[in-house]
Parts: sequence; structure tokens; C-alpha cells
Amino acid sequence: MSTLVLVHGFWHGSWCWSEVVPHLAAAGRPSVAVDMAGHGLHARRPQWFTGQPYNREAVGTEVSPLADVSLDAATELLTSQIKRIGGGEPVTVVAHSAAGPVLTRTAQETPGLVAHAVYLTAYMPASGVSAAAYTRLPEAADDRVAPLLQGDPARTGALRLDLATDDAAYRRRLYEAFYGDVDPVLADAATGLLTPDGPIGIMLGTTTLTRDGWGSVRRTYITCTRDMAVRPSLQARFIAEADAAFPDNPISVVALDASHSPFLSMPGELADVIIPLG
Amino acid sequence: MSTLVLVHGFWHGSWCWSEVVPHLAAAGRPSVAVDMAGHGLHARRPQWFTGQPYNREAVGTEVSPLADVSLDAATELLTSQIKRIGGGEPVTVVAHSAAGPVLTRTAQETPGLVAHAVYLTAYMPASGVSAAAYTRLPEAADDRVAPLLQGDPARTGALRLDLATDDAAYRRRLYEAFYGDVDPVLADAATGLLTPDGPIGIMLGTTTLTRDGWGSVRRTYITCTRDMAVRPSLQARFIAEADAAFPDNPISVVALDASHSPFLSMPGELADVIIPLG
Repeated sequence: MSTLVLVHGFWHGSWCWSEVVPHLAAAGRPSVAVDMAGHGLHARRPQWFTGQPYNREAVGTEVSPLADVSLDAATELLTSQIKRIGGGEPVTVVAHSAAGPVLTRTAQETPGLVAHAVYLTAYMPASGVSAAAYTRLPEAADDRVAPLLQGDPARTGALRLDLATDDAAYRRRLYEAFYGDVDPVLADAATGLLTPDGPIGIMLGTTTLTRDGWGSVRRTYITCTRDMAVRPSLQARFIAEADAAFPDNPISVVALDASHSPFLSMPGELADVIIPLG
Repeated sequence: MSTLVLVHGFWHGSWCWSEVVPHLAAAGRPSVAVDMAGHGLHARRPQWFTGQPYNREAVGTEVSPLADVSLDAATELLTSQIKRIGGGEPVTVVAHSAAGPVLTRTAQETPGLVAHAVYLTAYMPASGVSAAAYTRLPEAADDRVAPLLQGDPARTGALRLDLATDDAAYRRRLYEAFYGDVDPVLADAATGLLTPDGPIGIMLGTTTLTRDGWGSVRRTYITCTRDMAVRPSLQARFIAEADAAFPDNPISVVALDASHSPFLSMPGELADVIIPLG
């Protein structure tokens, strides 16, 4: 079985898989959780996030130090991580949420490095369409993340969460958007590890998909039926579009009755889904 | 070769190993970075850390939500993690800094679960001596962490860093204490993932070491010769005391010319040291 590479979504880091990895190891599936470009150990924090006193206005206006992080750059980093981890052998990549377009581009450019592309309630855009475009569709109309975003991404370069506010209502809505089925104490610990800026460039990039590129790679989509961030109807659209584009290589679909964050709410069940994906 | 379990020190989390794990995977050594009790996804944050406005006085006085985390509890968590990861088979545990006493207690209580105990510039206290006692020795006199600690641990229950301050001098001293040889941008990202309270209970606990317990386990100490947190003279004392207590099972010693954080400054070199430790 190939090594697993686990890629978190926006605002998270390699840390979000730390309850899943022990289950994978117990089953003999070696895995490596990596940091996406602009996240975890690759994050850079805007000044308002560490400045005192709290500057409400800067939250909405400061240009992100990650405004220059593109889908190209994120793909370059993930490709280098895959090459290092696999030593040139293909790996199985599990991409959550906004890591989806990065996995798609990587698999399109170097299909020989991706044994299996696994999308965990992730953006899986069609050929030539940005992930951002999907956030404007009716299927995303009731997502709970959009109302939390601060400032104009065209100006700040980021999808920005206000992780410095002590507004209890905002913090509760953040919890409901991401962690609805997660133990509140665990969710608070996770919230403490989030970084505020998701680089909009990753959401704006597009990838031309071809039959011998992404279309040739084995793919699984893990749906999360109670997801308030990437809504089930949007997940279904990603799958339908992919199957329409590449009918000879359909997506395998597995459902979890989970929020956006099964890596926290049901790490054992999520591991059980991932373990057989060779 | 046994699976590797990587345990961070105080204020850090599983995330701090994310540059090391890919190198280990590339060499065919599966590894799992876990969160220590009170850290990462097991952290609980004091109110001053998320409150607005910044309350300088509370930093020094608020009782930590981790004040009840003991060496017993930390050992219980690590033991359960090892059992899950290894499936009952022994694993090699790499403990950094304040994870040392947790590894020592775990190896003493269940030596059959620890194939190799690896201390990375870690507290490795002698029988019946707390890790905290070593911080008062002449060998620790010039450590750079102690002057950064806020409040009275006897009152707060924690070794507390003020990670909410925007005092540039304090932040520079934090950098020098932990990350002197780390790229400043990477060090800033790491600082953003730290949690402010290290549970003092872990440092206060003691373990009675026996010949057929900890004394029977294979042990390696990785020294860091430019460490400003756990000073080289203190590292040498840990090794000398262990060898005096258990002369028939001496510690193997490997030196890295590194600060307290080789997992950030030289992840490849650190991996090269760990990989052969079966």
C-alpha cells in the first residue's frame, strides 16, 4: 500500500490530523500530515493578529502577508512534499476542503505521483473553473463560513477569519461552521491553532483537466452529510461534474455522517474509510 | 524497525515535527507525532490569552485551566497513544524537552512498550527527582526560558509564556531562547502555534527508577550544543546521573550543533540521527 499524505484545508495545519494518524499507523498505513502553503509552519501572520490593542478596522483592511501565495506555489510545495515522502513512488493524497484544488492541480501535472486522489469534503473544481467560483453557486448559498469572512479578499488577498476577536457570538458561529459535531473543548483547542488568513490565490487558480492527467488518476470523494462549510449539495455537484467529464473513471463515493471536521469528531471512523484506499 | 512516536515539549504540539516526519517516511521509518497532555488538541487556553483588551495583570495571576494536569495524567495519555499506535508492539519514543519526564515514567511503568527511549535535549530526571528541581541547579542558571515565565507557577499551576504581548523585546528573547538557529519567518510561524501554559504538574512529578524498569530500556540522548533552554551542561548532567545509576545499560549519546529546536532548524539532520534508532 502506498504512503498516505494528509493535507488540511484553509486556516488549519498538519496538527488537525493528529487524532487520525495513530489509527492509520495501528492499521499499518504509514501517513504524513503536511502543511499547505501559507499554513502551519508555512504561515505568516498579519500584524493585526498579534498587535495590541485589538484593531477592528485593520482586520478588514490589512493586506495579507500571504496575498502572493498562488495555486502554482501551493502545488509546487505539495509536489515537493510528495516527492520527498514517497521517494519518487506514488502516494495516496487525502485533501480536505481548500486543499482540493491543490491536489487536483498536482494530480493533473504529475499523475504518476498520485496513486489515489482522495477528496474529504473538498473543493474539486471542474476543468478551468476556480474553487472560488463555486462559493457563488446556489449550492453554497447557505454555507456558514462566508458570513464569518472579514474584509474584501480582492483587497486583502485572503479569506480572513477574525481569530483575535472576543465576540462570543462570532466564536460560536465559527464553531457551528466548522466543528458542529466536535467536543467543544477539543474544538476550542483546534480554534487556538488556526491561522487567520487563507490565501485567496489558491481559490482563484484554475486547472485544465485532461484525460491522461487528472482524468487518469483513481479518485475517491468522502462526503460529509452535516457539513455547514462545504455543503452536501456542493459536494454532490463536484462529484457529478467530474463523472460527467470523465465517465470512464468515475469517482468512488463514501459518506460520513459528519460536520466539516471528521478528523476531530470521528477520527477512528475517518481512518477506517481511508485505510483501504491504496 | 519499530514505529516512531514523536513527543514535543512544553508549549509546542504535534505540529513541530512536521518538517521531520517527511524525512523519516522517505527512509521507510513510519512515525506518529502526538500531542502531550495539555498541548495541541489537548490544550486548554487561559482566558487572558483570548480576551480583549489584553490584561497584563491576568497573565501573571490567572489560574491555568491545565493546573490539574499531572505527570500521572500525561503518562496515561502517552501510554494510550503508544498502545494504539503500536497495537501492543513496542515503539521507539523520541521525547523533546519537558516530554522527557513523561517518557521516563512511561518506560518505567511499561518497559515492554518502549523499544528505545530517545531524549532530544530533554529533561531526564534521576530516580525520585522532579524535572523542576533541575531548573534550580547551577547547570540551568543561564537558561533563557526562566526569565520569560510569567507569574508564580505555585499559584497559576503553569509555566506560562506571554504569547499575547506585542512587546518586541519579549518576542525577541523568546526567539533567542527557543529558536536561535531557526529561520526567523519559520520561527514566527512556530511561535503562532505555541500555547501559553505548560502544566507545572508534569515538571513536579517524580518517578522511582528501577533496574528492570527504566534501567532496562535502551536509551539514547541527543544533545544540542547551542541550546539556550536546556543548557548543554544540564544535558550532560542528565546523562552522567543515568550512567551512574545504571552503569550496565549506558546511554548512547549523539550530538547536534543546534539550538533547542533542531526539528525546525535542521530537520533532515535530526531525521538522520533518529532513523537508525530501532
